[in-house]
Amino acid sequence: MNEAEKRLQERYGKKLGALAAEFPWNSQLLDLLSHRSVRAYLPDPLPEGTLDVLIAAAQSAATSSNLQTWSVVAVTDPARKERLSVLAANQAHIRQCPLFLVWLADLARLRHTAQRLGLPEAGLDYLEMFVMAVVDAALAAQNAVVAAESLGLGTVYIGAMRNRPEEVAAELQLPPGVFAVFGLCLGYPDPARPAATKPRLPARAVLQRETYAPLESQEPAIEEYDQTMRAFYQQQQMAVADDWSHHSARRIAGPASLIGPRPAAGRPRPTRLRAALINPPLTAQEIPEPDAGLFLFVLNSKTRPPCSGGEPRTPACDRRTGEVELKLCY
Amino acid sequence: MNEAEKRLQERYGKKLGALAAEFPWNSQLLDLLSHRSVRAYLPDPLPEGTLDVLIAAAQSAATSSNLQTWSVVAVTDPARKERLSVLAANQAHIRQCPLFLVWLADLARLRHTAQRLGLPEAGLDYLEMFVMAVVDAALAAQNAVVAAESLGLGTVYIGAMRNRPEEVAAELQLPPGVFAVFGLCLGYPDPARPAATKPRLPARAVLQRETYAPLESQEPAIEEYDQTMRAFYQQQQMAVADDWSHHSARRIAGPASLIGPRPAAGRPRPTRLRAALINPPLTAQEIPEPDAGLFLFVLNSKTRPPCSGGEPRTPACDRRTGEVELKLCY
Repeated sequence: MNEAEKRLQERYGKKLGALAAEFPWNSQLLDLLSHRSVRAYLPDPLPEGTLDVLIAAAQSAATSSNLQTWSVVAVTDPARKERLSVLAANQAHIRQCPLFLVWLADLARLRHTAQRLGLPEAGLDYLEMFVMAVVDAALAAQNAVVAAESLGLGTVYIGAMRNRPEEVAAELQLPPGVFAVFGLCLGYPDPARPAATKPRLPARAVLQRETYAPLESQEPAIEEYDQTMRAFYQQQQMAVADDWSHHSARRIAGPASLIGPRPAAGRPRPTRLRAALINPPLTAQEIPEPDAGLFLFVLNSKTRPPCSGGEPRTPACDRRTGEVELKLCY
Repeated sequence: MNEAEKRLQERYGKKLGALAAEFPWNSQLLDLLSHRSVRAYLPDPLPEGTLDVLIAAAQSAATSSNLQTWSVVAVTDPARKERLSVLAANQAHIRQCPLFLVWLADLARLRHTAQRLGLPEAGLDYLEMFVMAVVDAALAAQNAVVAAESLGLGTVYIGAMRNRPEEVAAELQLPPGVFAVFGLCLGYPDPARPAATKPRLPARAVLQRETYAPLESQEPAIEEYDQTMRAFYQQQQMAVADDWSHHSARRIAGPASLIGPRPAAGRPRPTRLRAALINPPLTAQEIPEPDAGLFLFVLNSKTRPPCSGGEPRTPACDRRTGEVELKLCY
């Protein structure tokens, strides 16, 4: 079995001999295929210059219209990592890794720049710009991951940075218009606790040709993957009782499940993304705390008038009907 | 000047000798630093197996909770590329490149899977899941870009896939819950029209330590970058009259500018992201077409009841006040 064949077999949990044999593989491709998330780190600090090189790689990723709507906070202070860990479902690797990067969708730099020049910046209020900034941050972070792995470092993304976004924003002193999209742990993997390559869905489930085929056509690939993942969970002795379909369905069952598989005991339910782009956050009087979690994207409705000439409005909540009314400007 | 020094100088438009000299560089890092967007392609098709390898690399990227909330449509049909080009500000390289990939935030696969099992999937209605899917798609795409560049291919992202999302969804037959986040052109770069490495902001503008410093502290780095970009625009003989600050401010001035620097003549104003996750799209009667563009994220309010037990509601618009009322469930 050649190297490519081995990596593909790990990635898909089965042999893909034809693809492996025919293709002009290179070491970069093989490295990409070998990615695995690392959740156990040695305490060793990163060599001098590593952060700068990772950032240069991140900045080399594409960015929409060169607007560079992302920033990153490098956290090495143990006390701050500890607090961020608590805000992210108590994940131990956030405390353990020598470098924790928090990747930010950053619309504040452009707002500040335009305001300094006395130029309009109303475009920043649109969801389009939020999506652009999230994409910019993700492309940059993934380049940093590839760079880190080329240096023998391990990484794991921390989506739970979105569990309690207002508190993360306060901890990192984020200005209005800056949102923590995800975290990233970096460090040398602990060889005593090696990570496995996790198999993915058969490519034919995610790859569509010319148009998106009816969803039913993905069913055989998903069934095959359920078998693959049953075997993987067993092999890894993971405490997952069933297959990917059931496991994933539990994760999306409702708002309370969105916090991920390891909610911190006694923590409030997630209020992810609610008003996270406005700062200071809306107070409890302005949006009552719903117990199932409310994921409103308020589009700066507090700090900016929602409609020209009008007064800023805050969303009103009718506790009886369970509805929140939000007025948006067009 | 060593290789790393040269790449860093191109990336930042100035010498960074100390960093270059001290660090254990490798070829992967140098390749990441050399990224440039390619907008001129040879007509040569990609070698057999390339798409499969790119998808394997993409699937090897991290994905939140292994939910794999992305898909991709590979488009090679010239007529379809032509139509997509028209929907994306007539960008010629979409027609020209041999392979055009449209990266999708895909919540439909999980919805379908949970529904087949008779399990709840209400979590999918939250903005949190949309952000997760956008991030998943971006991480996957960036891995494909790194893989493609290792094979000598060039790429350029097409954010303008979000200009007219309902029409893109119709063209690609996207089901409800699937959203085209961006496109990606791939092909062999035309050596007659080489692309330059575009300088980025000084790292100290995007990299924050421990906490996000007050925005004013970024001003010197931005001023330095404005000088760098003035020189770059001149050197490249680009028709940009001024610097990055002014150029970027124009891009975010208001909703009409969000479509990017090359709006198609006679095209309607952008309606990016409006109701793009619901399908069929809301009709004009349900949300009137505003001429400044409306960027409502409707969160499936048409296809799913917004509150338990209630009737599905469609947003109502008051033309007089310019307000759209949207009821969300919590």
